[in-house]
Amino acid sequence: MGLSKNTGIVIGNMQKGKNNLITDVPGVKVGHLTLSKGEIQTGVTAILPHEGNLFREKVMAGSCVINGFGKSVGLIQLNELGTIETPILLTNTLSVGTAVTALVKYMLKQNEDIGVSTGTVNSLVMECNDGKLNDIRGLHIKEKHVTDALESASIIFEEGAVGAGRGMCCLGVKGGIGSASRVLQMDGTRYTVGVLVLSNFGERGDLILAGNPVGKCIRQMQDEEKTQKETEKCQSAFESGERDQGSIIMVVATDLPLNERQLKRTAKRAGAGLARTGSFYGNGSGDIAVAFSTTNRVPHYSEKDILETKMIYDEHLDSVFRATAEASEEAILSSLYHAESVVGVRGSVRKGLREYLDRIQE
Amino acid sequence: MGLSKNTGIVIGNMQKGKNNLITDVPGVKVGHLTLSKGEIQTGVTAILPHEGNLFREKVMAGSCVINGFGKSVGLIQLNELGTIETPILLTNTLSVGTAVTALVKYMLKQNEDIGVSTGTVNSLVMECNDGKLNDIRGLHIKEKHVTDALESASIIFEEGAVGAGRGMCCLGVKGGIGSASRVLQMDGTRYTVGVLVLSNFGERGDLILAGNPVGKCIRQMQDEEKTQKETEKCQSAFESGERDQGSIIMVVATDLPLNERQLKRTAKRAGAGLARTGSFYGNGSGDIAVAFSTTNRVPHYSEKDILETKMIYDEHLDSVFRATAEASEEAILSSLYHAESVVGVRGSVRKGLREYLDRIQE
Amino acid sequence: MGLSKNTGIVIGNMQKGKNNLITDVPGVKVGHLTLSKGEIQTGVTAILPHEGNLFREKVMAGSCVINGFGKSVGLIQLNELGTIETPILLTNTLSVGTAVTALVKYMLKQNEDIGVSTGTVNSLVMECNDGKLNDIRGLHIKEKHVTDALESASIIFEEGAVGAGRGMCCLGVKGGIGSASRVLQMDGTRYTVGVLVLSNFGERGDLILAGNPVGKCIRQMQDEEKTQKETEKCQSAFESGERDQGSIIMVVATDLPLNERQLKRTAKRAGAGLARTGSFYGNGSGDIAVAFSTTNRVPHYSEKDILETKMIYDEHLDSVFRATAEASEEAILSSLYHAESVVGVRGSVRKGLREYLDRIQE
Amino acid sequence: MGLSKNTGIVIGNMQKGKNNLITDVPGVKVGHLTLSKGEIQTGVTAILPHEGNLFREKVMAGSCVINGFGKSVGLIQLNELGTIETPILLTNTLSVGTAVTALVKYMLKQNEDIGVSTGTVNSLVMECNDGKLNDIRGLHIKEKHVTDALESASIIFEEGAVGAGRGMCCLGVKGGIGSASRVLQMDGTRYTVGVLVLSNFGERGDLILAGNPVGKCIRQMQDEEKTQKETEKCQSAFESGERDQGSIIMVVATDLPLNERQLKRTAKRAGAGLARTGSFYGNGSGDIAVAFSTTNRVPHYSEKDILETKMIYDEHLDSVFRATAEASEEAILSSLYHAESVVGVRGSVRKGLREYLDRIQE
Repeated sequence: MGLSKNTGIVIGNMQKGKNNLITDVPGVKVGHLTLSKGEIQTGVTAILPHEGNLFREKVMAGSCVINGFGKSVGLIQLNELGTIETPILLTNTLSVGTAVTALVKYMLKQNEDIGVSTGTVNSLVMECNDGKLNDIRGLHIKEKHVTDALESASIIFEEGAVGAGRGMCCLGVKGGIGSASRVLQMDGTRYTVGVLVLSNFGERGDLILAGNPVGKCIRQMQDEEKTQKETEKCQSAFESGERDQGSIIMVVATDLPLNERQLKRTAKRAGAGLARTGSFYGNGSGDIAVAFSTTNRVPHYSEKDILETKMIYDEHLDSVFRATAEASEEAILSSLYHAESVVGVRGSVRKGLREYLDRIQE
Repeated sequence: MGLSKNTGIVIGNMQKGKNNLITDVPGVKVGHLTLSKGEIQTGVTAILPHEGNLFREKVMAGSCVINGFGKSVGLIQLNELGTIETPILLTNTLSVGTAVTALVKYMLKQNEDIGVSTGTVNSLVMECNDGKLNDIRGLHIKEKHVTDALESASIIFEEGAVGAGRGMCCLGVKGGIGSASRVLQMDGTRYTVGVLVLSNFGERGDLILAGNPVGKCIRQMQDEEKTQKETEKCQSAFESGERDQGSIIMVVATDLPLNERQLKRTAKRAGAGLARTGSFYGNGSGDIAVAFSTTNRVPHYSEKDILETKMIYDEHLDSVFRATAEASEEAILSSLYHAESVVGVRGSVRKGLREYLDRIQE
Repeated sequence: MGLSKNTGIVIGNMQKGKNNLITDVPGVKVGHLTLSKGEIQTGVTAILPHEGNLFREKVMAGSCVINGFGKSVGLIQLNELGTIETPILLTNTLSVGTAVTALVKYMLKQNEDIGVSTGTVNSLVMECNDGKLNDIRGLHIKEKHVTDALESASIIFEEGAVGAGRGMCCLGVKGGIGSASRVLQMDGTRYTVGVLVLSNFGERGDLILAGNPVGKCIRQMQDEEKTQKETEKCQSAFESGERDQGSIIMVVATDLPLNERQLKRTAKRAGAGLARTGSFYGNGSGDIAVAFSTTNRVPHYSEKDILETKMIYDEHLDSVFRATAEASEEAILSSLYHAESVVGVRGSVRKGLREYLDRIQE
Repeated sequence: MGLSKNTGIVIGNMQKGKNNLITDVPGVKVGHLTLSKGEIQTGVTAILPHEGNLFREKVMAGSCVINGFGKSVGLIQLNELGTIETPILLTNTLSVGTAVTALVKYMLKQNEDIGVSTGTVNSLVMECNDGKLNDIRGLHIKEKHVTDALESASIIFEEGAVGAGRGMCCLGVKGGIGSASRVLQMDGTRYTVGVLVLSNFGERGDLILAGNPVGKCIRQMQDEEKTQKETEKCQSAFESGERDQGSIIMVVATDLPLNERQLKRTAKRAGAGLARTGSFYGNGSGDIAVAFSTTNRVPHYSEKDILETKMIYDEHLDSVFRATAEASEEAILSSLYHAESVVGVRGSVRKGLREYLDRIQE
């Protein structure tokens, strides 16, 4: 969905993809598993780069660690070999181990050669800390939840306080999952750049909405609420939310034949979109972007020593970079726009952005 | 100067330094040498991190290559050793060799031990391509010009189309030198973060001024000018200016005792300010940031094997990062705001931002 | 132990530490948990940088990915913040997820603030693929095994086919855990550099023993064994072992006050030792080094904004680098020297180096 | 030449190329300009990746900074774009500026579009400090010398104390230019990996010759010479030579279609060869490797947006890595073997390796 026309919010000037989602890139699917029960407000989101056997047919990839206060798993090999060979999982920070184990089992099941006649498998699991709303110490994500997210993957998926985004907070409001896409032409063919984010970063008051520093208004509203002591419990959430201890994961997909180096460069441009929403890449924020190409694939087994591949003429990358920056900015705002208010652990509350926007418009 | 109150443009919410310049950081000085005569529109800008012997008393430093389509010299050793040991020079791309040689001679003169009883010296020379307005192929910068820039360094310096900024273009208008600063407190003491930029990046139409996409208006004005064929020659400049083939150099100075790792992290935040002015880190743009601390110094000769040093408690870096992002954004806008219109090589013209702003306000 | 005098093998010329182990660095402890039963030949090794609360009192650290065909966890944050805040775990590749979860629980137990009033914790778990000898698909490492390794940590520990090294293969012979140390002086004080490796890399025939290419002899002996069909099952192990699909993890500890940048540089020197044993950093080998200082500590909570720290005068790092290269080379050879022969999954066999050395000497 | 059979020194087990030189890679040429007159002992070496217009037809490339105490120019853009677009120049550290300017002029002459209708050009100039034997402060390299080196490039070239290697010192003996090559098969076709080094690194006593620590013998001979006070002036050279303040530049060429990522990985393997000759990557040593493919070329102008390219199936890179490590080790030893003794600035003397080897054999 991203931000539809009737929100009145316009980001950039490129054409959007059909559904304005990362899944506009053919073959990409997204699945969520959401846990929402009292103190447990967390989940898993799975992104499948294509529908085949990812271990056998890897996708070229690159990554960018904008700020490394994060616990993501799998980037070392992604950078060395320039490939992704598993679905991409997003979840809460302390459940990364469980997600890795579940993903390993999922891959072993599909590939009997792993660990016997061939090497092992590089799980790609990324995370944000949802401890403000979720009982993160309880390690509530189980292996079954990971499998459920993987198996529920489809082209249409929800944004907002769902999947891994269930317990996330961002720029003083409710964060979560957001997505957007842009379309461009190369050699007369139409290609798509899609972005999915898990937003959990930023300081209260810093939100910039399409250039508009609405964060200041929102902070004022929040301060007034606190003065009125409407909700005692709300305070603690605000207090602990003062400093940026969050993170953001940004996944960029494209059917353009970008090579490893170009995908690394593309991933970096997600940071430009991020900055425009109000982030200055806070110290405590694990801000990480990954980009992959669904068309530049690398086989696990090859009879040939030398492989044919493709790359974009670098001079023409600007439209790819612009698409990435635009779609990243919109995906972040979309994650906030679609997130409903959530009450979580220790009674803390995070209101959705729309509650504030409605009051501003009144 | 940065953007003074009467411009009506406010960037961020932190307190500005006394002069709103990089030289608000005690000890830092800046000098320009400007060449402006017909087809020759270029120059040199020198930044002196402190007033002593930089080779004997190096300053801790870090850098960030946001996009590496650039020819800057000196970053390899800066990153390995975490220090700067010469003044920082800015000039046009093809004059980097001359600037290095001039800087080497300047350092040899001050230090009789270099190349005899001790090793060599690591020149730090950074650049942008001013070929749209300057006859860059003419290699008009001579060693004497470099020395002049070094010797003219002072606390008060000009911004705009001066020094290395003379021939630069940015976001469809005239670029150049800009600066700004922010003030913050640590352990009860007041510290300064100052930024100086050499702006030469971005596509026409993309300028964002404090959240406001004024670039679109400016592009419209420029398109109308072209239609009227007011200035035939102007066209060619606009045409060649369509694609981002520029660059930006951002230098961050502080008297905070940041260590090498922290300075690297700080340099990266200049990229957040950059993105907010309309950049998506274009393919052809060499976007590079360097940060140094004037108080964390490293001696060239030491009788002790183990040195005492300082670092900021990382949890408190957020104010440093915010200051860097704010001052970088303002320094870029200030470079545009202060740049006068320039007519240069092949009759090309770049108008200053204020010409357009005046017309918008009419 | 490393290589004692009576092995006749001398690596380098620096003085060895008391026990010639990583635990010669005061405060460092190592624990193993070994599983050895039929097809299950694997384990966990834990390294504790100091005896206090590591989350509260982090140690400065740096890392070097020599070749990134590896699945280690925790390096992103280690590099960004320059610290280690948990014990270091080594295990087999597919058990990384379990090790992370077990380590998270161990840290949560010690620290009630994690995930509530402060952020999360960055687990450091490193791995090699022991699938040639171990039923790695069985995921036999359980959380309890990790805790056992952590709790058994002490100053004296075994080398060879123990702990995480149980199922490892290296350069055509049995690999595993090895350690060595070197002693040096700074400002009149004695300091130690200690190394522990988990060796699992290299091609059959490439072993260099203190400059001596004994690998060639060993390969010849192995080829003769195969011809005689002494052990049918041995063959398959040899066959699958032709290509370097292994890895090596090298952990460098020191009580020298090296800072983050210097520790990163130090970690890199482990690669020099590695090359001297016969590695050319094979494509399939995850060759990763981590270095930490037990004396440069960083508090999790600080009342001060500015911290005092220390660093070595860089010109005097050469003895640290030499010590690291020497101890790394010796630790690798020691891992081979101490490893007994192991029979494992699918009947595969890896003989210990001493079996071959004995026959060479005959 | 590398090390011919009659030296009795064998490095590795792969097949050597026709001339055992980097120029065994078709199209690659090397030229020297040597200055040798009293205190002036320096020069320039030029490597031409192919015979066409390099700016128009760039070669894919990657680099590895093993230790960044160096002043090489051009690596930032090489890494970002993955290409080399000029000849590679080697010279002394303080002459880098002159070499850049001369190379810029050389490229401008060949390409009238640079700086007018297209962007600028990225000069690749690498260096070592020859100040022990050369009056490096005199800046004796002039632009004419650079052009001479470029124009003298051919397939057959000298090794030893020639070109940029004239004044270099290495491991206590005379360093300089060395080269070697290896041959391998992919998909039934024969390919070559060639290496050229400029050796200037290492501490006296550390030389390892094909596994043999002959450096110790050489140091002993040198100490005896000093005791005899045969040559008073020799002492000062030895004294200043105690610490590793040198550097090494290693250039790897191949006609294999390696892509940017693979060339970066390949460059790293030069460090394995380096370690085997006795280096532990000393603090003061700028150890840098660059690798390029003559067959994976990237056009400056392209009518197509999407380019066809090739890469090696990564699993088969091991032979490329082994070839690089072997040829690098041999090229270093060859640079020592071919270097004659040189008397230079302040009467300092560096004897060639053969003088010592002859005495050892006596």
